[in-house]
Amino acid sequence: INQLEMELEAIEKGGYEHFMLKEIYEQPKSIADCLRGRLDAKSGRLVLGGLRDYMNKFQNAERIIITACGTSWHAGLVAEYLFEEFARVPVEVEYASEFRYRNPVINEKDFVIAISQSGETADTLAAIELAKSKGATIFGVCNVVGSSIPRATHAGSYTHAGPEIGVASTKAFTAQISVLAMMALKLGYQRGTLPESKYIQLLHELAAIPAKVEKALLTNDQIKYIASEYKDVRNALYLGRGYNFPVALEGALKLKEISYIHAEGYPAAEMKHGPIALIDEEMPVIFIATQDSSYEKVVSNIQEVKARKGKVIAVVTEGDTQVKAMADHVIEIPETHEAFTPLVAVVPLQLLSYHIAVMRGCNVDQPRNLAKSVTVE
Amino acid sequence: INQLEMELEAIEKGGYEHFMLKEIYEQPKSIADCLRGRLDAKSGRLVLGGLRDYMNKFQNAERIIITACGTSWHAGLVAEYLFEEFARVPVEVEYASEFRYRNPVINEKDFVIAISQSGETADTLAAIELAKSKGATIFGVCNVVGSSIPRATHAGSYTHAGPEIGVASTKAFTAQISVLAMMALKLGYQRGTLPESKYIQLLHELAAIPAKVEKALLTNDQIKYIASEYKDVRNALYLGRGYNFPVALEGALKLKEISYIHAEGYPAAEMKHGPIALIDEEMPVIFIATQDSSYEKVVSNIQEVKARKGKVIAVVTEGDTQVKAMADHVIEIPETHEAFTPLVAVVPLQLLSYHIAVMRGCNVDQPRNLAKSVTVE
Repeated sequence: INQLEMELEAIEKGGYEHFMLKEIYEQPKSIADCLRGRLDAKSGRLVLGGLRDYMNKFQNAERIIITACGTSWHAGLVAEYLFEEFARVPVEVEYASEFRYRNPVINEKDFVIAISQSGETADTLAAIELAKSKGATIFGVCNVVGSSIPRATHAGSYTHAGPEIGVASTKAFTAQISVLAMMALKLGYQRGTLPESKYIQLLHELAAIPAKVEKALLTNDQIKYIASEYKDVRNALYLGRGYNFPVALEGALKLKEISYIHAEGYPAAEMKHGPIALIDEEMPVIFIATQDSSYEKVVSNIQEVKARKGKVIAVVTEGDTQVKAMADHVIEIPETHEAFTPLVAVVPLQLLSYHIAVMRGCNVDQPRNLAKSVTVE
Repeated sequence: INQLEMELEAIEKGGYEHFMLKEIYEQPKSIADCLRGRLDAKSGRLVLGGLRDYMNKFQNAERIIITACGTSWHAGLVAEYLFEEFARVPVEVEYASEFRYRNPVINEKDFVIAISQSGETADTLAAIELAKSKGATIFGVCNVVGSSIPRATHAGSYTHAGPEIGVASTKAFTAQISVLAMMALKLGYQRGTLPESKYIQLLHELAAIPAKVEKALLTNDQIKYIASEYKDVRNALYLGRGYNFPVALEGALKLKEISYIHAEGYPAAEMKHGPIALIDEEMPVIFIATQDSSYEKVVSNIQEVKARKGKVIAVVTEGDTQVKAMADHVIEIPETHEAFTPLVAVVPLQLLSYHIAVMRGCNVDQPRNLAKSVTVE
């Protein structure tokens, strides 16, 4: 029986050594699945079935509150930037565990978005119940169909990423951001804060993401080499700004989860307020330094790290020369609209943590101490 | 000349080996100085001169936005809990560097509080200018009189902590929280969300803080011993919930800044969503586990860490027995109202980082790579 099970598992992994790697590679498809039937860039059509009955509430929300844990919380941070930029609604992102215990100020004009891959996260579920009891509208962004959170919310959109087996979430994260991006575009267009021409342009840009993720996956061999160089580090810092700040947090979390290396994410500008004291030859710094509105600022952060003899690995936009001249390693990813960069930039970071963990002999798909869905508080 | 200068410095340190230690010990006095002339618990009087002309704006604010960097940002996180609990106003706390670059949604009904010890923090100053241009009211909480931020704001309250020389901020942090606590009490009382009896009780509780900080300082010898046991660790995790979550962040930042140990703060409940994978014999976990509303939850987090053979140092309420039975070390601090716990609980964490840094031979008052006030972006 054991042997059969192992063979079955091997088949399920579709030729990949681990579920996590398979799921990283599935992302062009899982993001496309998430967009399919919802986004049609050519006709300018964007339909999220779950929003239909609640569009009025959504559009008139005075505030959007996003609540989640772990990786889903990082997707929420990306969404904060998306909603504020495109729809000009104030957004608050809350750790579900903190939110529910602190008697938050919340009312019937608030629109609450709960994000959870499994749909079973205990703290998030409890946060929803609390917000519901105060009259807010609750919208779920989950992956597992029919799970507890979708049943507890007023409405929701599934991420359609397919089953995620690896404990470290990868394709669920990019699918969550895809759903949230569609919600932000829809909201911005309906509220009139996003002009039609820009809206259409962004729809095209979003529709092009699966192909760009496909291209980002081509960095795999290079990342494997970088991983071999850094696999024995004890610590790492991940830095990014704006849309890439949550990507830094997520990159660090992946490394923590599966390789047990103490990695920490920070908004790059905060480096000067403390973390820079940690920088020496033994502390690699991973920058997300794509060519966006904060590029020049991030470049100067890279200079500061290099001046202190830190090792720099940078995720950059294809064709970048400025960072290339300074960093120890650059990983090039295709250009996209700044707002969608997280969907592409996170891919090499997922691969980096994967390869480091494998080289360290860690159990990638089932890291110690962690459960796939956290159903206890 | 050199010798004279050194003697002068020795005099200025008032017998302490470092400015940082002197400043940690000054806190009973600096907090008292901050409260003096403003808070009179007996008569129920609470006056913040800076608020007088803007009380109307403050009281009718639909949202409070707090912007800061580093340690001041942590004080802002404590304030979020204070304002929401006592005055029931939604609060958003933003890294100044992130806030200013992302075209935030902000208008004339927003009340913005900028926190900075030096009053010169470049990112915070720029964030203020941005918020001002959008019509918001800006209130400064600074320590250095006549610095740039107080001059750029509509109004403000000084923290009156006296000059802070050590680069790692200590007494400025507790003074910032003291000012913010007074603001929250005042606002809650005026808005009618804080009943008079509770308001008076809280004023008494706040007035009693300097004596409690004095008592917390008596843990110094014990902490010196704990420091000697852990001085060679490479990593540390700091965990707390609710009001103590920002204390965990601040404790970790202190250790980072002056001892160059990679310490990271996390809301305790998020541990299960990743960081728990890091726990082994080599990763000490510092819990702030005072007897407050989340005590039982934190106790179960401690159990999880012990089950994975992690070392636990816990800051607990005087007389605690439950945590004592599990933790490797407990540091007892006097009981206070949950909302004011950060003012007392942070003290042993400041001492811990100080002693570890000294034992590692680090330059405590002028850690590598760091400047006292960050006047570049």
